[in-house]
Amino acid sequence: MTERFEIVERALVKMLEERKYATLRDILITMEPSDIAAVFTGLEDAKIPLLFRLLPKELAAETFVEMENDAQELLIRGFSDSELKEVVDELYVDDAADLVEEMPANVVKRILRQADPEMRNTINQILRYPENSAGSIMTTEYVSLRPTMTVEESILRIRRQGIDKETIYTCYVTQDRTLVGLVTVKDLLLAEDDDTKIADIMVTNLISVTTQTDQEEVANMLSRYNFLALPVVDGENRMVGIVTFDDAMDVLEDEATEDMEIMGGMLPSEKTYLKSTVFDLFRHRIPWLLLLMVSATFTGMILAYFEDALAAQVALTVFIPMLMDTGGNSGSQSSVTVIRALSLGELRFADIGRVIWKEVRTALLCGGVLAVVCFGKVMLIDRLLMGNTGVTVLVAAVVCLTLWITVVLAKAVGCTLPLAAKQLGFDPAVMASPFITTIVDALSLLVYFGCAKVLLGV
Amino acid sequence: MTERFEIVERALVKMLEERKYATLRDILITMEPSDIAAVFTGLEDAKIPLLFRLLPKELAAETFVEMENDAQELLIRGFSDSELKEVVDELYVDDAADLVEEMPANVVKRILRQADPEMRNTINQILRYPENSAGSIMTTEYVSLRPTMTVEESILRIRRQGIDKETIYTCYVTQDRTLVGLVTVKDLLLAEDDDTKIADIMVTNLISVTTQTDQEEVANMLSRYNFLALPVVDGENRMVGIVTFDDAMDVLEDEATEDMEIMGGMLPSEKTYLKSTVFDLFRHRIPWLLLLMVSATFTGMILAYFEDALAAQVALTVFIPMLMDTGGNSGSQSSVTVIRALSLGELRFADIGRVIWKEVRTALLCGGVLAVVCFGKVMLIDRLLMGNTGVTVLVAAVVCLTLWITVVLAKAVGCTLPLAAKQLGFDPAVMASPFITTIVDALSLLVYFGCAKVLLGV
Repeated sequence: MTERFEIVERALVKMLEERKYATLRDILITMEPSDIAAVFTGLEDAKIPLLFRLLPKELAAETFVEMENDAQELLIRGFSDSELKEVVDELYVDDAADLVEEMPANVVKRILRQADPEMRNTINQILRYPENSAGSIMTTEYVSLRPTMTVEESILRIRRQGIDKETIYTCYVTQDRTLVGLVTVKDLLLAEDDDTKIADIMVTNLISVTTQTDQEEVANMLSRYNFLALPVVDGENRMVGIVTFDDAMDVLEDEATEDMEIMGGMLPSEKTYLKSTVFDLFRHRIPWLLLLMVSATFTGMILAYFEDALAAQVALTVFIPMLMDTGGNSGSQSSVTVIRALSLGELRFADIGRVIWKEVRTALLCGGVLAVVCFGKVMLIDRLLMGNTGVTVLVAAVVCLTLWITVVLAKAVGCTLPLAAKQLGFDPAVMASPFITTIVDALSLLVYFGCAKVLLGV
Repeated sequence: MTERFEIVERALVKMLEERKYATLRDILITMEPSDIAAVFTGLEDAKIPLLFRLLPKELAAETFVEMENDAQELLIRGFSDSELKEVVDELYVDDAADLVEEMPANVVKRILRQADPEMRNTINQILRYPENSAGSIMTTEYVSLRPTMTVEESILRIRRQGIDKETIYTCYVTQDRTLVGLVTVKDLLLAEDDDTKIADIMVTNLISVTTQTDQEEVANMLSRYNFLALPVVDGENRMVGIVTFDDAMDVLEDEATEDMEIMGGMLPSEKTYLKSTVFDLFRHRIPWLLLLMVSATFTGMILAYFEDALAAQVALTVFIPMLMDTGGNSGSQSSVTVIRALSLGELRFADIGRVIWKEVRTALLCGGVLAVVCFGKVMLIDRLLMGNTGVTVLVAAVVCLTLWITVVLAKAVGCTLPLAAKQLGFDPAVMASPFITTIVDALSLLVYFGCAKVLLGV
């Protein structure tokens, strides 16, 4: 969103206040639905129905789909039955199903009452598919052709039916409701003879998904194959709908946001940042903070257990934060890399051996370099510059050896846990930095005091 | 990638070894280019040209585009000039430009020699646009129409030119090379009269980007408006190319991956995980590890400075890891949220006041709850259960007060730094957890010893 857009937004709100409705309408009809929806976001509740009624029917419905849930609910509650019917009639079924999913029960009842029976049926069907499945994001409005049709007949059919379909550019060829091929409008337009049969030009090596396929996998496939849409079939290979590229884009963005939130130690949220209340943020953040705070007790216990060792060699205390942080950072590097590769479909659990072997060698290299630099730093800065005489060569050796071992352990843990989580059916992103930091903290302290015991005899 | 796909892959490699070339070819021509490219990934070098030569011309070029750079280079080095020309002729210019960007200089020379003069020109032009700009990812192959053409003439033109265009579904209307409107194939097909002039049905409220627009912004716009393509214009509003939805999807995925890598304290990498060597991983991870290790020295210095205080109240040491970790987690929650909102275009620097105000209130709430729970935990577990008599009510109060203040500071720092980075022209993702952890560690210790001084008089 650019600054320029905010200026337009302010100008529109001003016109609404000054009741310049005709001019306002003239401007609105030149705008994209999602931009108009953004204007609604900044509006006070009382003005929302006013502005909405200025929009022509089709644009109104398109804008409605792009609006925030609060504004949608407010509008529906204010609609007369005939107004509601007008909007619902213009919606694509997948958008209608989304709407029904988000609205409270009494609003849903009103929506379903206004939908025509066919749409009501389809909505109910879509809602029965598991959340985040292809079935739950598909649309049932696609162009279907028969193998026996000619190119000319097909183009005619598209002309007749196309206006209500979400995409007309990929047409699906079915026989007894079974998907047997696909034809693009490009193929139809470039066909040399209008009498060519669809069966002769259709592509029969089809890539399809089932209603149960996970939406992230569907989106990855659309992105991988650069398709405009993917056909969705049921258990008997009967065509039931399509998932279009624009929905796939939304899935890709949402899944990436969700992964980042989980990796950052938060429960995923569906609201945008500025729309979230303080309490929303609190609710999504406090569970992990509490859990991690309590589990940090173990680290504290380890420190308490080695209190005497620390008292005997006070110089050791100074290096604890550095060891814990470097361990945490090393571990989260590995976990973030593996989590991302998993969600892009680049890695599977079967690769675990290769992953660990690669991470351990990387860790040996990283840890080795860190240990050497650390040794130099400790002797130069801590001993010479800061004159900390407690920092002997042996203390430095303990610190550097711990560092090396910790980095290796951290990377091994960091790459293994997300893979294990995936295999056990959990979201791998849960195994990201905050969680791994807690484990690595404990490990690094145990290694530290272990090394100190062996080398310094504390 | 499913297990089933791996089985197909192994079967194909086996056929190649057994020289069943005819069967192999029959199977390959039924597959998607990106799936065939994946087969090449698992192949030993010597077999790559062999398999490639089995592919029909057009499929070969499409597969070539999807292959890894190593395999592409290997193939080009083995190509005769005429073989190379065949592949290059089939490439879209944006793919050709990508290829030229990735190959070493002597390979590039050969590619450019085989490209026809027009393509060579366009490639050179695309390469002159800044990296990650719309100009660098656009294609110059689109269908252009004149406002004076009729619907029938337009469809004829698409039929004649369409085969070489990356998309035919959105056609751009230009006058003296200036973009004046757009028409979709859907509009053309649904037009009631074949003699209708394009000027009468074209959309004139155009959304376009310039060659200099950042690719992430372009991708966000495509996703926001659900367009198949966005027109790219130069400084004088002359149409120079289009960015298509499939490239936008790749940009969205790549930018999300890059953000996650940077947030995880790594330099972004272009290779997939399994393709990266151990040295690649090392190179991308060691800089941040070194930097953060050295900067942890400050935390060590603070600890050293307060050594006497710690010696006087040994019970304090036990809580240091918990305070540092909770601070780090709180800070990274805020920074991850803000970084993601920035890259989705939901936030701008101008929002900094609202963001800080929201984060501080959230922090007061989170910190308050954490402090209360922590007090209970310390008194119950540390004092009663573990019998640590050093943990007095006053010590517990110091710990909980520190916790509260640290959470507030951490969240304030966590949300401010990414916004400031963005404003200064840096990548906000750099300000994520590893960096913020280091700052918050130092802050939490200063607060801890400050509170201890006031309340315990150490």
